[in-house]
Parts: sequence; C-alpha cells; structure tokens
Amino acid sequence: MKFLRFMKDGRLLHGFTENRRILEIREEEYLSDNPEVIAEHSLDDVRILPPVSPSKVVCVGLNYRDHAAELGMDIPDEPIIFLKPPTTVIGSGDTVIYPEMSSEVDYEVELAAVVSERARRVDSSAASEFIAGYTVLNDVTARDLQRRDGQWTRAKSFDTFCPIGPVIETDVTPDNLDISLKLNGEVRQSSNTSNMIFTVHELLEFISHVMTLEPGDVIATGTPPGVGQMVPGDTVRATVEGVGTLVNRVERSVWMD
Amino acid sequence: MKFLRFMKDGRLLHGFTENRRILEIREEEYLSDNPEVIAEHSLDDVRILPPVSPSKVVCVGLNYRDHAAELGMDIPDEPIIFLKPPTTVIGSGDTVIYPEMSSEVDYEVELAAVVSERARRVDSSAASEFIAGYTVLNDVTARDLQRRDGQWTRAKSFDTFCPIGPVIETDVTPDNLDISLKLNGEVRQSSNTSNMIFTVHELLEFISHVMTLEPGDVIATGTPPGVGQMVPGDTVRATVEGVGTLVNRVERSVWMD
Repeated sequence: MKFLRFMKDGRLLHGFTENRRILEIREEEYLSDNPEVIAEHSLDDVRILPPVSPSKVVCVGLNYRDHAAELGMDIPDEPIIFLKPPTTVIGSGDTVIYPEMSSEVDYEVELAAVVSERARRVDSSAASEFIAGYTVLNDVTARDLQRRDGQWTRAKSFDTFCPIGPVIETDVTPDNLDISLKLNGEVRQSSNTSNMIFTVHELLEFISHVMTLEPGDVIATGTPPGVGQMVPGDTVRATVEGVGTLVNRVERSVWMD
Repeated sequence: MKFLRFMKDGRLLHGFTENRRILEIREEEYLSDNPEVIAEHSLDDVRILPPVSPSKVVCVGLNYRDHAAELGMDIPDEPIIFLKPPTTVIGSGDTVIYPEMSSEVDYEVELAAVVSERARRVDSSAASEFIAGYTVLNDVTARDLQRRDGQWTRAKSFDTFCPIGPVIETDVTPDNLDISLKLNGEVRQSSNTSNMIFTVHELLEFISHVMTLEPGDVIATGTPPGVGQMVPGDTVRATVEGVGTLVNRVERSVWMD
C-alpha cells in the first residue's frame, strides 16, 4: 500500500492512495495492514506532506557500484554515514530553496527506508522487521561547500535539502528496483538498486550498531551515477520503481539578508 | 539560575538548583524568569536527566586558537559543522558506553548553548536573544573511526556519546569562562572560552543561516587542547566556570552481539 500524509482545510491527515484518490485513515492505523477507510479525498484538493517526520535522517555515501566506477573510486569496505537534520525535510510538491551560500547545488535520487520500530543492534537477517516501507528521497547537496568543508554536514543540511515522498510503499522488496531522476524532463540518473554495494538490510545492521533508530527515522541508501546541478526554476522528478515519483521545483530564497 | 530536569518516583520533573537543593517548578516555567517554586527535593533523592531534549545537536570542529596551535593547523576561515543524533544524549551521572566497534574513544569538553526559540538567519548582534542559557557537553569521539571514515559522523554518533548538563545556566556570559576536564581526578584539558576562534554568537549566526534552529537545540562550540582517551572504568569531569560540572563514567557495553 502507498501511505501518505496530507493537509486539507488546515488539518494534518493520514491515508493511502489508490487510482489518484486518497483514502483517509486514522493516524493510529498509518502504515498498518488493513486500515479502516474513514473518508475519501481527491489528490487535487490536498497538499501532500512528507510521509514521515523523522527524528533523524541517516544517509550513506558512495553506495552504487556503477557510481564508484564512474568516479574511479574503490568499493568501500564499510558504509560512510552522515546525517541530515530534521529541518531539511520537505514533501513532494514543496520547493527546494537555493541557498545564497552556495553556487553549485546538486540533486541525488535515493531509495529510502522508513524505520517501523526502535532498532538497536539489529542483524541484517532481521532487518526487514524494522522497516515499515520505502520512499524516494533527494539528497540535495551544495557541492561547492562539500568540497570546501571536507566534512559533508553543512553542504547537506540547508532547510529544504531533503525532499521525501510522496508515499511510503509498504509492499515492495528493495533489491531490484529501477531508480532514476529527470531534470526538466531529461533523464539524468538511471540505475537499479541491484547495483548497491551495501544492501538496505546490511545498512540497517551497520547503522543500528552505531545509533538506536527510532520509529519514523529514515535511512537514505546512496545515489547512482549522474548527479549534477540544479538551478532556480528547475523541476526535478525522482522515481523509484514501484514506489513513486517525488517532484520538486528549485527557487531562490525569498528571505532577505 | 541553574535549571535542570530530574526523575523522581518515575516522573520527569523540572526545577532549578540552589545550595544542593532542587526547587521544583512547572514545566511551562522552565528556563523562564522568576518561576514559582512548587516543591523542594534533595539532590540525593533524584536522578539528574539531560537538561534538554534537543531535536539536533550541532557541533563545531576546531574552534580554539590554542588547540589549533597544538595541532599545527591554520585558523579556519569558516566553522566546520557536524551533527550528533539526539540518541547520543545522556545526562550527568549516566554512563558512556564504550562501543565494540572502536578501540580509541576520546573525551572533548565543550561549552554548549541551548536555543530558546526558533532561529533562522539570525545576525550575531541579535544572537543572545535566541540563547536560553549554557551547559557543559562532552563530545565523545571514537578517534580511530574518525580517522578511518574521514567523515566524522559515525565516530561521534554512538548512543551515549553526548553527555550534557547537569544544568542550564541562564545568567552567564560565554566569552571569558575557564573550561577544563579531569580524567580520574587529573586535569587533562584546561583553557578559557576567550580562546575561541568563532564566538558563540558568530556560531549561532553561521549555523542559523544553514539550518533553522528549534527551541532546545544545542550548539556545541568546540573543544580546547588536551583531548585524549578514556577507557572503561574511567570517570570524566567536565567543567565550565559558572555553569557546572558534568560527571560521567565509562563502561563496556552490556549488550550482547
């Protein structure tokens, strides 16, 4: 099922999608099997929200064999992890704000896993029990600041730099899904999750041996080849097969200095 | 005033300290001026909690001139920031768990600022209005993993790797405070916040131009010279003049693989 959160008439509501309809359910039944439908809405009448409010977004560096080959880099022995703060998260349809500090902002499509329950020191063989489902994530990155700082945190932490959504698909296996990104309608990234170096389950094992994962936390699993720049006015569509398409426009900040 | 949170009879309570007494106040009056005292407790009867539950802990790399000199490094032009996840936070008296992944775990005493209200693109001249007060923080770091990964996130993100407290002092200015750390009673770090490269207010300006800071978020302002290893059985006392002393013991994990 494709679960989502949405805003209508000023209220935050929960539901799932079927044929461009939204079937509203109670918050307690979000991400559960066989939730009871309590109302119906048209997709055109609501504002889509991020499908989850994570307490942390844990991301993984270089995790696609084809991307490593493109960069001429060795396959890493262990995942390299980093964090994006919760304040980066926006939903499908929201605007990525191009920060004044940067002049080189890149897209990075990723498959993301959503944690279902507290996960601490979980073995990869049990990892699927701790994953509620999968969504699409764009790990927006100020590449110039990433190079300058060495550390990746600033480059990846600007408000709006983590579009997630539009839905959490609870009935998909993550190991062999096409993953792609279009910039203004042109394909820029195209690969398959079978090219991942560390599987989603291996990543959950690794990360949960460092830090406790809480329900709703998000694990972003790395990006395939073809990352590149976005500029204000661009529209980015990030797609994972069987999960959905995350659409965001890029604009300059409207804030004044 | 020295505000703190504590647990007694299974309840999370708020208060401030005076002469080893805890004066309990209502949660709504935490960190406010002239809170009404509703009960009194002995420090010996309660368990001290972290004085805040941050949605994010934003830390700064090399930020003491004397530490840069010790390392033979240039003074950076801009702060280098990184994040510790909320799951790292523990209080004074809690135990730092030595992770199995590492064999080199270091202490780093830091002055930390606690954000009072949402801060977005704040100028340093207005920064004090967004700071509720100051506390002591130990930026525990698995130095071997920090070197191996290049990125600092894993090394600094293990559960229990961010002791904070014991109190938030609301009536102190941060610019000229002695800061020190004792390992098993021996002084290992000793400096003064006047040696900071970027002041607390400059850091708040810089960080709030990257990410929105929420009430309760914590900014750790870097560590002075003298960082070094802790081993299981060690006791660490981190002190900031006029703020307090944060005490933690280090133990091996009790979890089984």
